[in-house]
Amino acid sequence: MQLDQASTEQLREWESALSAEYEQYQAADLSLDLTRGKPSGEQLSLSDSILDVLGNDLGNDGNIDLRNYGGLDGISECKRLFAPVLGVAEDEILIGGNSSLTLMYFAVLFASQMGFGDLGPAWKSGGKPVKFLCPVPGYDRHFAVCEHLGIDMIPVAMNDDGPDMDQVEALVKADTSIKGIWCVPRFSNPTGIVYSDAVVERIAKLATVAGNNFRVFWDNAYAVHSLSDSAPQLASLMAAAKQAGTADSVYLFGSTSKITYAGAGVAFVGMSAANLKAFSKHLGMTQIGPDKINQLRHVRLLKDSDGLTKHMRQHADVLKPRFDIVLKHLKDGIGDSGLLSWTAPEGGYFISVDTLPGLAKQVVAMAADAGVKLTPAGATFPYGKDPEDRNIRIAPSVPSLEEIDRAMQVFVNCVKLASVRQRLA
Amino acid sequence: MQLDQASTEQLREWESALSAEYEQYQAADLSLDLTRGKPSGEQLSLSDSILDVLGNDLGNDGNIDLRNYGGLDGISECKRLFAPVLGVAEDEILIGGNSSLTLMYFAVLFASQMGFGDLGPAWKSGGKPVKFLCPVPGYDRHFAVCEHLGIDMIPVAMNDDGPDMDQVEALVKADTSIKGIWCVPRFSNPTGIVYSDAVVERIAKLATVAGNNFRVFWDNAYAVHSLSDSAPQLASLMAAAKQAGTADSVYLFGSTSKITYAGAGVAFVGMSAANLKAFSKHLGMTQIGPDKINQLRHVRLLKDSDGLTKHMRQHADVLKPRFDIVLKHLKDGIGDSGLLSWTAPEGGYFISVDTLPGLAKQVVAMAADAGVKLTPAGATFPYGKDPEDRNIRIAPSVPSLEEIDRAMQVFVNCVKLASVRQRLA
Repeated sequence: MQLDQASTEQLREWESALSAEYEQYQAADLSLDLTRGKPSGEQLSLSDSILDVLGNDLGNDGNIDLRNYGGLDGISECKRLFAPVLGVAEDEILIGGNSSLTLMYFAVLFASQMGFGDLGPAWKSGGKPVKFLCPVPGYDRHFAVCEHLGIDMIPVAMNDDGPDMDQVEALVKADTSIKGIWCVPRFSNPTGIVYSDAVVERIAKLATVAGNNFRVFWDNAYAVHSLSDSAPQLASLMAAAKQAGTADSVYLFGSTSKITYAGAGVAFVGMSAANLKAFSKHLGMTQIGPDKINQLRHVRLLKDSDGLTKHMRQHADVLKPRFDIVLKHLKDGIGDSGLLSWTAPEGGYFISVDTLPGLAKQVVAMAADAGVKLTPAGATFPYGKDPEDRNIRIAPSVPSLEEIDRAMQVFVNCVKLASVRQRLA
Repeated sequence: MQLDQASTEQLREWESALSAEYEQYQAADLSLDLTRGKPSGEQLSLSDSILDVLGNDLGNDGNIDLRNYGGLDGISECKRLFAPVLGVAEDEILIGGNSSLTLMYFAVLFASQMGFGDLGPAWKSGGKPVKFLCPVPGYDRHFAVCEHLGIDMIPVAMNDDGPDMDQVEALVKADTSIKGIWCVPRFSNPTGIVYSDAVVERIAKLATVAGNNFRVFWDNAYAVHSLSDSAPQLASLMAAAKQAGTADSVYLFGSTSKITYAGAGVAFVGMSAANLKAFSKHLGMTQIGPDKINQLRHVRLLKDSDGLTKHMRQHADVLKPRFDIVLKHLKDGIGDSGLLSWTAPEGGYFISVDTLPGLAKQVVAMAADAGVKLTPAGATFPYGKDPEDRNIRIAPSVPSLEEIDRAMQVFVNCVKLASVRQRLA
C-alpha cells in the first residue's frame, strides 16, 4: 500500500475495505489495553518467593535491627547488589523505598531549591526560571516532575544512539539557565534505543560545556532489562564522568520495579560520595529511613549479579514473544508502505511508532473507539504536546499474546484507515 | 534539698558530696542512652509474626494485584483499620509508605508551593514569608521540615491541656502570614500531655480566626499509645472541624512506626475528601503508589480495632515499667526541691523535664561526660534554641530497666550538682 502512488479510486477502494474491517472491530466489543508499562502477572510471579524468602531470619551484614528506624542510605548487602546495575561504587549508592520517581523528584527539588552546598548553590538562587532539556519522545513522569516544580522544558531530538548531542551542546552553551537533562539511557522510554558510548561520553562532559551547576538525570530504569543476551551494553556514565572530572554532575537512578514487584520493590540513586552526602542530608528532612526489611528480601531473592542476570532472563522469556507479535504486525501490515516508522527495541517495555504527520491523536481515538486503549498521543512530549502529532507508545507487556495479536490487528487497521482518509481529504 | 534556704556552707557540703558521687559515675565507664524515641527490640518482637503472616496469600477486598503498580491511596482494608485511629471516615484517609514524616513534608511542600486549587492557593503566592506556630517544647523533625522549606517558626507556649490558645488565637489574628501550626495532640512530644476537648475545639476553629488558607498539621503519632486503659482520650479534630465548617483546614497524620516495625510500618494522612483529592494529585507527581503488600501485612497482623487495642496493651506492658523507673528517680531524688519540674505522661514515648533556668545544656553535657547520652538541650525548640535553656527530653523506651535505673541515678546527680554549683557561682 503506497499512498503517494495511488489513484483516488484506489484510495477510495482501500478506504471502503478498511472501513468495513474497522466496523467489524467496533462491533466486536473489544476491551484491550496497550497503555501500561508495567509487568504482567506472569512476570510478577517470577518473584513470588520474595514473600517468604526471609522466614524469620533478619540476619544481615551490619548486625542491624532492620525492624527499627534508621539507615537512611540502605543496607550494605543491597548496595553491593545494585551498585553494579548503576555502574557506581558501593559508597556511591543509596537504597531507598519502592519508588525511584520519588528519589528523582527529591533530587530535582533539592538541587532546585536547597542546593548542594559546596557542590552547587540552589538553582533558584540564580533568580531566573530554570530549564531542563528533554529528549523526545520521552517519559511523561519526568516531564511531570519538571512541571510540578516549575521547571521549563526544552525538547531536543532523540536519535538512534541517544539525544542529538550537537543540539544539546549548543543549547546548554547558549543558555546558562539550562540546568539539567533527562535521560533513559538503555532501552529508552519509549523508543527503546541504547545510548552509544560516544553519546555517553559527551553527556558526561556536558557539565564542562554548560554553565555552572548543570546536572544529568540518568534514569537507568531498564539497566538489566534486555530481551536477549546480545542486546547492546551501556557505557558507565559515572566512569566517563570521573574521566572528565565531572563526577559531581551526574545523578543515576534505578529500581527493581520491573525486576521484582512493581509496587513493592526497592529504588536506588547513584551519586559521587560528596553528592550523596549532601543529598542524604536533605533526604533526612523528609524521612528517617527506608524499609530495610524489604531491601533484605531483595538480596535474599536475587542473591548476586549472577542471580539477577538469571532472573532477568526469565523476564525476557515472557516479554520477547510479546514484542515479536507487535513487530510482526507492523512488518506484515505496514511493511515499507511508509505509513509508519517504528523501533525494534532489544529491551525495555515499549515500542515507539511514528505515524504520518498529524495522525497520532486520530489513530489513538479510532483505536479507542474500537476497544483498544493506547497511551494518549502527545504523552511522550513535554506539556503533552507532540508538535507533529506523530508519536504513539505501544506497551505490550501486560496483555496476553492473543490480546496483543488482536489489538495490533486493530491498530494496523486504524493506522492505514487514518492515513488513507488523510490522503483523500 | 531546698537551695534557696541553704547556707553557703551547706551548699558547699552538698557540692562536695554530689561531686564525689559524680566522679564515681565518671569512673564507672558507663555507656547509656536516653535519646531515642524508638521502640525497643522487645517491643518490635511483638509484631514479628508480620514477617510471615501473608504466606503466599495476597487476597484482598479489591481483588487487586498488590504486587503491581498503582493504588496511590492505599488498600481499602488498611483504610478501614486506620481511619478510626485518626478519627476520620474511610474516604478521608490515604495509606502511604513507611514514613508519616514524608507525608507531612509533602503536605507542607504542596500547600506552600503548589496550592490545593479551589481549596486554597499556594502560600507562597502571597509573596510574603510564610510562618508556622510551634508549641514548645515540640518535635525537632517538625521544625526541621519548616526550616528546610523556608518557613519561619514562632514558638508558642505549651500548657498541660495543649497550646496556649489565647496566645495562638491572638497571633494568627494579628498576622495573616501565619499559615500553619504543628500539633502532637495526644501524648505530645515531648511533654506527654493530651489536648483537652476545649483546646481541640478551639484549634478546629482556628481557620475562622486566622487569615485565609490556614492549616492545622495534626501529627497524631501516639494516637493509640497509652500506658493504661484509663489514659485521657483525644477528641476528634475532624469531627470538631466539620462542626465548625473548617474540615478543609485540618491535615491529620499517623503511622504504625510505634505499633509494628518502626522502619517498616505504614503511614497515613487524614483529610477532607476534597483535600485528599488535591493532595493525591500532587503526590502522584512524586510516586506511583505505596507498598501495598506491606499494607496487607499490617491488616493481617492487627486485624481490626480490637486487635489493635490488644496489640497496644502489649506495648504498654513493656513501656510502663520504664516510665515508672524514670518517675521514681525524679520523685525520690528531686522531690519537691524545685530543682526540676517534670511531666508524668500516660502514654507516648517521652518524659519532659525543665531544669532551673540556664542549666539544661550543662546537665546534658555533664551526663554525657559520665556516659549517659541525652537528647541535646534545645532540640525541642525551633532552630534548636531554648530561650531559657531549661528543657530536656528523656526517652526511656530503648534501654533495659537496669540501664534506665543507672542512667537516672546519674541524671538526678547531674541535675542536683549543676543546680548547687549555679547557686554557689
